[in-house]
Amino acid sequence: MSARITIALDAMGGDRAPDMVLRGASIALQRHPAAHFLFFGDEGRLAPAAAKLPRLKDSFTIHHTDEVVTGDARPSVALRTGRRSSMRLAIDAVVTGEADCIVSAGNTGALMAMAKFGLRMLPGIDRPAMASFFPTQRGESVLLDLGANVECDAENLVQFALMGEVFARTVLGLLHPTVALLNVGSEELKGNDSVRGAAVRLRAPGVPINFQGYVEGDGIAAGAVDVIVTDGFTGNIALKTAEGTARLFTDFLRNSFQHSLSARIGYLLAYRALRKLRGRLDPRRYNGAVFLGLDGICVKSHGSADALGFANAVGVAVDMKVNGFLEKIRDGLAQLSEVSAPHDKPQSAAL
Amino acid sequence: MSARITIALDAMGGDRAPDMVLRGASIALQRHPAAHFLFFGDEGRLAPAAAKLPRLKDSFTIHHTDEVVTGDARPSVALRTGRRSSMRLAIDAVVTGEADCIVSAGNTGALMAMAKFGLRMLPGIDRPAMASFFPTQRGESVLLDLGANVECDAENLVQFALMGEVFARTVLGLLHPTVALLNVGSEELKGNDSVRGAAVRLRAPGVPINFQGYVEGDGIAAGAVDVIVTDGFTGNIALKTAEGTARLFTDFLRNSFQHSLSARIGYLLAYRALRKLRGRLDPRRYNGAVFLGLDGICVKSHGSADALGFANAVGVAVDMKVNGFLEKIRDGLAQLSEVSAPHDKPQSAAL
Repeated sequence: MSARITIALDAMGGDRAPDMVLRGASIALQRHPAAHFLFFGDEGRLAPAAAKLPRLKDSFTIHHTDEVVTGDARPSVALRTGRRSSMRLAIDAVVTGEADCIVSAGNTGALMAMAKFGLRMLPGIDRPAMASFFPTQRGESVLLDLGANVECDAENLVQFALMGEVFARTVLGLLHPTVALLNVGSEELKGNDSVRGAAVRLRAPGVPINFQGYVEGDGIAAGAVDVIVTDGFTGNIALKTAEGTARLFTDFLRNSFQHSLSARIGYLLAYRALRKLRGRLDPRRYNGAVFLGLDGICVKSHGSADALGFANAVGVAVDMKVNGFLEKIRDGLAQLSEVSAPHDKPQSAAL
Repeated sequence: MSARITIALDAMGGDRAPDMVLRGASIALQRHPAAHFLFFGDEGRLAPAAAKLPRLKDSFTIHHTDEVVTGDARPSVALRTGRRSSMRLAIDAVVTGEADCIVSAGNTGALMAMAKFGLRMLPGIDRPAMASFFPTQRGESVLLDLGANVECDAENLVQFALMGEVFARTVLGLLHPTVALLNVGSEELKGNDSVRGAAVRLRAPGVPINFQGYVEGDGIAAGAVDVIVTDGFTGNIALKTAEGTARLFTDFLRNSFQHSLSARIGYLLAYRALRKLRGRLDPRRYNGAVFLGLDGICVKSHGSADALGFANAVGVAVDMKVNGFLEKIRDGLAQLSEVSAPHDKPQSAAL
């Protein structure tokens, strides 16, 4: 793509901001040379840091503000008092149309609250969801919701399925991504009311989703489907359980290699192969939880991300914009409402 | 311990039954020489197989039956039609007092239904839970419920906390195991009503549980606490997500070592250390999901367990019996009801 795209960045969000943000933007420019960045934050720190990154030259504008949303701020407090914060001003740039998308590595809850307030929900979507990629045996898949909604009804899950499907198409480039609901078994009667109700709706003829039924927890890493849909409580715990298990393995493996001299030599000989393994599981590749369901593109980078991780989060936002994520969600919602219309009518008539 | 303990075994349950069951019993005898086994199943197959295992001599009795609960049988159907099955007769041996505990690698749902029907619930426990061990950075911990109850209220979770605590004391040998609720954050207001309600009750003074509040999903593998309590939906998905992630790592690692000649030589040099890693994560060590809350000891071995895994499941049942699991649950329930009594009275008086 060569059309210019404008990306609003909360330059003060994240453990290593603002340097990490600026260096991330510089890395992202290699992949997206037509990008223009709006950096929101402390000009006194941003200007000299940006000057040290020659690739950024002519590709950024600094919007000064002294205010920052801290990592421990409550979302409601941040929303009320953070109107001049770097995070809020970056979101507002998307609201006014000055920017095409916003990326922040700051406080997740505050970002969600501000993005929801500023960008509003897409008409037809009741609640936003957080989605992310994770590595699988087959490549990578999308998991949502990762914690935006502790409790979800069947309709929420159906909307998440649609949003996840469009996300996989626009960012992973899949033509017909497969979608499943996370459940405790594969039989039709398993699970709670929300999951079963969502399955009934997703199986209905005419639904524009390649729905595969249920997958269990081990289906996530197996890559059983491209998009796995669940409520925010379960999704958050599944994601963090997987992260914890991965860390357990990495630590055990490191200890094993330090176990003896022959193991250490073995490690050196296998070093390149193991580095490839690390690359395949590099959390930076999977950085960026996306807020889906908003009427605008907002990507959350991990707070501890480095410049490469942040650049990947920027890449996700660019892909969503360039590949028409919002337009495709609108199309999908229109198709969904056509499918459910015949069912709804007799019920209304019966009242 | 030298007191004789009698263990009822469903000799026909599991993918590799009955050989795996008999060989598992033989291995378990090494650790528990005072054990006596009741094998329930097809005598024509059991007698010659047992004769080949000299260590079993004089330590078993065969109870013949032709009937078997198949792996795909619905629990309700198995309960109605399987009265002469090896699984049901093994449970009945505990009901009549002929055996001290029962172990089966057969159909999980059928075993739960039959055990609940035959053994009944412990007075004061509303629902049974499934618990298991898993490896952590610090050793091993207990997770429950793993899928017996898709939806749980606060009182269920409090009872699970008590049962998990006693299980960790009797089987892991911990004096004051730490207990936490699985949640999507560590702040008090996080989570759903059940989790928050259970936390309030578990924090009350006088509750005989070393309650540590909330842990997130990554706290499971980190070994943040000894006992992690959650509803059966979340627990099942967390367990299987961890299993799937472990498999992903193992497969990626194997592929890495086959990547090049030097990686293969490296693997050979590191072989012993890697074997130790495998041993530490060996699923057979963690074999055996226990049904807690029943008025009797019932352990479920994994259906695909081998003899060593099955022997470990037998060991769990023996530890529970010998260390007075049921008596300790009764004591804990009595203490819990004393704690909650003062709260309950004013409410009753107000009616």
